[in-house]
Amino acid sequence: MKRVFNFSAGPAMLPEEVLREAQADMLDYKGSGMSVMEMSHRSAEFKEIIETAEQDLRDLLSIPENYQVLFLQGGATQQFAAIPMNLMRKKKADYIVSGSWSKKAFKEAKLYGEANCVASSEDGNFSYIPDVDALTFNEDADYVYICQNETIYGTTYHKLPETGDVPLVADVSSMFLSEPMDVSRYGLIFGGVQKNIGPAGVVIVIVRDDLVHDDPLPFTPTIMRYATQVEAKSLSNTPPCYGIYICGLVFKWLKGIGGLAAMQKRNIEKANLLYDFLDQSELFRATARKEDRSLMNVPFVTGSDELDALFVKEAKGHDIVSIKGHRSVGGMRASIYNAMPREGVEALVAFMEEFEKAHR
Amino acid sequence: MKRVFNFSAGPAMLPEEVLREAQADMLDYKGSGMSVMEMSHRSAEFKEIIETAEQDLRDLLSIPENYQVLFLQGGATQQFAAIPMNLMRKKKADYIVSGSWSKKAFKEAKLYGEANCVASSEDGNFSYIPDVDALTFNEDADYVYICQNETIYGTTYHKLPETGDVPLVADVSSMFLSEPMDVSRYGLIFGGVQKNIGPAGVVIVIVRDDLVHDDPLPFTPTIMRYATQVEAKSLSNTPPCYGIYICGLVFKWLKGIGGLAAMQKRNIEKANLLYDFLDQSELFRATARKEDRSLMNVPFVTGSDELDALFVKEAKGHDIVSIKGHRSVGGMRASIYNAMPREGVEALVAFMEEFEKAHR
Repeated sequence: MKRVFNFSAGPAMLPEEVLREAQADMLDYKGSGMSVMEMSHRSAEFKEIIETAEQDLRDLLSIPENYQVLFLQGGATQQFAAIPMNLMRKKKADYIVSGSWSKKAFKEAKLYGEANCVASSEDGNFSYIPDVDALTFNEDADYVYICQNETIYGTTYHKLPETGDVPLVADVSSMFLSEPMDVSRYGLIFGGVQKNIGPAGVVIVIVRDDLVHDDPLPFTPTIMRYATQVEAKSLSNTPPCYGIYICGLVFKWLKGIGGLAAMQKRNIEKANLLYDFLDQSELFRATARKEDRSLMNVPFVTGSDELDALFVKEAKGHDIVSIKGHRSVGGMRASIYNAMPREGVEALVAFMEEFEKAHR
Repeated sequence: MKRVFNFSAGPAMLPEEVLREAQADMLDYKGSGMSVMEMSHRSAEFKEIIETAEQDLRDLLSIPENYQVLFLQGGATQQFAAIPMNLMRKKKADYIVSGSWSKKAFKEAKLYGEANCVASSEDGNFSYIPDVDALTFNEDADYVYICQNETIYGTTYHKLPETGDVPLVADVSSMFLSEPMDVSRYGLIFGGVQKNIGPAGVVIVIVRDDLVHDDPLPFTPTIMRYATQVEAKSLSNTPPCYGIYICGLVFKWLKGIGGLAAMQKRNIEKANLLYDFLDQSELFRATARKEDRSLMNVPFVTGSDELDALFVKEAKGHDIVSIKGHRSVGGMRASIYNAMPREGVEALVAFMEEFEKAHR
């Protein structure tokens, strides 16, 4: 068996221990005589899986009791519609556009009401996060929306906007569980799990009770209504059971390594390895503004399209895969999510050194 | 390792060969050095997985070239909204209500336009399929909707309604790939895969080209627009990759056993074993009208709630699980999907004989 260092922006690496456990239980989950894939979502076994997953997630993030946790389908993209459908009661929301994902969410929200772009960093090809201290928000907005970590551009909010009484809504897909968060700062947090938590096909929504109500926009599909899913404990229809099971295994793994503070420490160490190298390199440079750098996604370039392409090609020979950058930035992107071992970043930096010597 | 006979209505049994292959490939899919769960949905490996799955499905169902195949999220329930959002251009559709699932779809459609119930079997607790020959449809309807196999009541259309120029839309979730179908009879076919095809979290939509257009209802979420997903080949956002991979393995398994005609033969044999026993039993009886019986879901009762409960309880001792009926019908329900081996039905009938002797 071979395992590579997979720097994909998502779907992405999962902890090897988690995959081994899923492998062992594939045909017979804990003596049930069936795979988790084959299990009724109404069974006692699956009930325990989803309830344990929720409790472990609550423990990891210290989620206050007045927040609901939902395991849904459709990815973060579906939430781009579900959020305005459920939250735009006054039909007005403020968006900070800091990259492709917040831009998509902003565009989608316009289908449902007045979405205002209160700040954008598009002028700098989204290489930075707008200065949140300089912003004012519409007091009558239903919510203020941010994408807290922009996967493509490798930027992150190191400080949250102060939105007063207006609920803050955050897409945390590409930084979910990479560090502790103060959930009480938000009205709603959501993220696709396929970067840091599990296989594609599950999106987790953490929503404050007062934002769950029976009055979404009238055409909101039943399963996209938060109130429906809260009442049904995410089982309004058959949920993505196997994905939820894998998320649960990852939550256990995170608890086992010491929780999110320990995970953050590891992630800072890994990111520093790479950024420190980039900052002294004469060939490579990071593209995101230093103050806004992400711990998870590290885009970098050589300045030459030919060298970038050669780097991506030769990296494969070192078992470094999916390192090609997104076309909007070009070059390379190393996504170093929770499950990327330190050895992977070390291997990447070693190869970058070698490549730099050969091509400087 | 233990394997039980799992009669769950869904999620349900998968072929053991499929689970074994998934197990073997869990940490390293065909030398890629990663699990299918970890793979970028834009990678060459995943592209091959989804394209092969589509082609195998096309082969199995002989899908004409003017039909598109989509692998989406949200289950059949999400399609209850997506179908009117995309197809209700004249805001009018006819529904045949033959059970809980068509009733739910009918109710959901009312959010989007004029949904007419042209026939219902609710008067007989959905124990039969309305006589389709006696029906006339609105000529200006956007579509006629049926649920072709009602999972809860164990009924199925052995004859399709003649809808003239109005497209026929069918939910085939609980009979998908259990027998050959003439796809050209339909405008749109859809089904959640968690009964006959794969793990929960994937819904397959087969839609005729003329029903794919840029003019859905204005508030339709982007990823629920068929035109968007057709253009993106189901990759408008990250798809449920692992579920699609398992579906692909099941398609290969179906081809390996001889395709849908061979599958249908097996399914008829399995169903006959059970129905023949029920028809001669002095304790048990099937609840669905004989002419409308499903090959997949077989609800039956003893007539005594106490005996039903005892049967369900004692069945577990014979490794017969998830045999409890839905509360709307009571008693028992044996879902005998493609992956239920003949031995499972034989074991069930043997236990029913034993139980009948003890309790008649």
